Amino acid sequence: MPEVSELAKRAKEAVFTLASLPTAVKNKALYFMADSLVKRQEPILQENQKDIEAGRARNLSSAMLDRLLLNESRIEGMAESLRDVASLPDPVGEVVKGWRLPNGLLITQVRTPMGVIAMIYEARPNVTVDAAGLCLKSGNAVLMRGGSEAINSNIALAEVLSQAAISAGIPEGAIQLVKTTEHEVVQEMLKLREYIDLVIPRGGEGLIKTVAENATMPVIKHFKGICHVYVDEMADLEMAVRIVDNAKTQRPSVCNAVETVLVHAKVASKYLPELAKVLTGKGVELRGDSKTRKVLPQAKEATEEDWSTEYLDLILSIKVVETLEEAIDHIRTYSTGLAEAIITEDYTAARKFLDEVDSAAVYVNASTRLTDGAEFGLGSEIGITTDKVFPRGPMGLEALTSTKYVAYGTGQIRQ
Amino acid sequence: MPEVSELAKRAKEAVFTLASLPTAVKNKALYFMADSLVKRQEPILQENQKDIEAGRARNLSSAMLDRLLLNESRIEGMAESLRDVASLPDPVGEVVKGWRLPNGLLITQVRTPMGVIAMIYEARPNVTVDAAGLCLKSGNAVLMRGGSEAINSNIALAEVLSQAAISAGIPEGAIQLVKTTEHEVVQEMLKLREYIDLVIPRGGEGLIKTVAENATMPVIKHFKGICHVYVDEMADLEMAVRIVDNAKTQRPSVCNAVETVLVHAKVASKYLPELAKVLTGKGVELRGDSKTRKVLPQAKEATEEDWSTEYLDLILSIKVVETLEEAIDHIRTYSTGLAEAIITEDYTAARKFLDEVDSAAVYVNASTRLTDGAEFGLGSEIGITTDKVFPRGPMGLEALTSTKYVAYGTGQIRQ
Repeated sequence: MPEVSELAKRAKEAVFTLASLPTAVKNKALYFMADSLVKRQEPILQENQKDIEAGRARNLSSAMLDRLLLNESRIEGMAESLRDVASLPDPVGEVVKGWRLPNGLLITQVRTPMGVIAMIYEARPNVTVDAAGLCLKSGNAVLMRGGSEAINSNIALAEVLSQAAISAGIPEGAIQLVKTTEHEVVQEMLKLREYIDLVIPRGGEGLIKTVAENATMPVIKHFKGICHVYVDEMADLEMAVRIVDNAKTQRPSVCNAVETVLVHAKVASKYLPELAKVLTGKGVELRGDSKTRKVLPQAKEATEEDWSTEYLDLILSIKVVETLEEAIDHIRTYSTGLAEAIITEDYTAARKFLDEVDSAAVYVNASTRLTDGAEFGLGSEIGITTDKVFPRGPMGLEALTSTKYVAYGTGQIRQ
Repeated sequence: MPEVSELAKRAKEAVFTLASLPTAVKNKALYFMADSLVKRQEPILQENQKDIEAGRARNLSSAMLDRLLLNESRIEGMAESLRDVASLPDPVGEVVKGWRLPNGLLITQVRTPMGVIAMIYEARPNVTVDAAGLCLKSGNAVLMRGGSEAINSNIALAEVLSQAAISAGIPEGAIQLVKTTEHEVVQEMLKLREYIDLVIPRGGEGLIKTVAENATMPVIKHFKGICHVYVDEMADLEMAVRIVDNAKTQRPSVCNAVETVLVHAKVASKYLPELAKVLTGKGVELRGDSKTRKVLPQAKEATEEDWSTEYLDLILSIKVVETLEEAIDHIRTYSTGLAEAIITEDYTAARKFLDEVDSAAVYVNASTRLTDGAEFGLGSEIGITTDKVFPRGPMGLEALTSTKYVAYGTGQIRQ
């Protein structure tokens, strides 16, 4: 088995060819990859079965086993997401801006691939497919290292994807998976600054911290999401119930679910009972500050710790605030900078909230759950970031590119 | 004297106010800062004199002393560069893109300040002024740590700049300089991930390496520049002499000066003697491969080491190549990814070079020396980067910003 540094070197060698591949070739490869997944699903499902059995033997939770499981419809879903990526515009070569200097030099800023991207992830085998598709479309080589739980599935998927891509004219080395699951491999990868331009970790906080602390190259990371919805005194309260319900219960285990609702004091006594009725009916545990508990005595007492807890569960903390400013202050203090929303019909309040809340996504009258690459129309996302040195939010194809300046002269020199 | 962590905390506190300051207030502050530098130049020049005397006592080279020296015209130059920054458009609030989702949610991607930027730099006191101006205009707080050689000048400059800014309505903490020069302070700063969003080191390779290796937050770095000019068989040879002359001799000590010229074999015997005549007259030492030395026997032999050396001096290495592809291959192998140029009248050759050379700036028929924020019309630059996770090239105001998504809904939820 080749060393991980050998794989990374091959990836780097593929970059030169990948960067100037016509869009048509990349799209053809994406369709081949999609078709191959469906046609060659038998061996993939067999390998997946091994992972499921190993997972049972290791007493993985049924939720974990479900995330691991592949079946015909899930494979069709993966294929479909590759076809979706093919249908997206090619980011490479886009002229971001351009201008002419007084000396006549015409400067354009052009989007380029980033180079070699390392994906380090846990569990879900669909990440293998998403990463391969998004990196290929954006002209990058990808070196993937999945978790041990899905190793057999990942090897089978990567094999099918890579072969299909090569048969469509993509260079070897463009799509590669590290086949060993020893932990040392990750440490080795993180030292290969010479070959790897960017690392994207996806998984639990532990994995992300390890990667962030040991990487010698830039890392795109996102730790957790404590999202807020502020229900303003001028909110459409029915809409506010619908949005908080969606943001809390539609999928409570994800980072863009709401954890804390801030309610203006003037509407608390009308709004909170209506909200409680809907949420309690869905099994949501409510925790409130003292003002909340005056209206909702059934709510547990929220402690200081609640405001900084990402429940990822059917629990909601509620605080009554006297002003919009108090809501913004609370968000400044406790938000992790992912997504926050204001529900209001007041133009000036909306404007102030959107201006002053500095999160990756800020909404007026919409659910924080919409913070997602597919929802945003970016195609399947490769990750999400709240790190201000990157464009924040869901990361689609564009987030996998760099830019270079291309300048057209007629003999210009520096004066 | 406050601890560096205390300064960083103050900077973070200023960020909230800074982010939503009207452009007019920021511009007013920049004009105040410019006027104050001129009006209060006496104490600045006195403090600068201390640095010059200390530098002489430490036997600094005359080039170093010259870089340290301030005088009336240099202070006027600094003031002028602040006024230039005031005249640039405010990047904060720019809507980078926007679109409407099928569900009616209107999404905009909006430019925001990055937060707290730490500048760690050596020698030249003008960096203090440039960093303060560019960070302020882009809505960021800046925490500066200059080198010991210029400490008295830097303290005086930062004092004047900060007071002028505050008197124009900028929050305290927006412009701060660390007044101690102990090396441990840098290590301390690099740990303050909680407060500092980005570090920009400027100076020698040693400084940059130390910062890159020890920072716990993202670093914008640029190590060195080995720039190439390729003179194609279809080049206008007179233009090619003028451009290489400019790229080598106009200021040989900087990163965007050319170090290696690649010449197509078909024009070598005509071009090289003309080039040699001009360059030798200016005291440039020529080093060539064997094919070059057949035409220019006076050139020294270029060794393998020459191709990867950044001379930063009046030395030029020359290689004769048989094809455009050979030139591109050489650049792929030895370039540091900063700036490369092709001189040609052949459209297809130009297109291929611009497409396939992946450097921060690629030129046809222009000098690599133009790779500069001011030349590009970005205003004074805060640095330059060849790191592909950032927009590559000279970094103006835009490079000091992040983006957030601002979404306008009418009750949208996740389906």
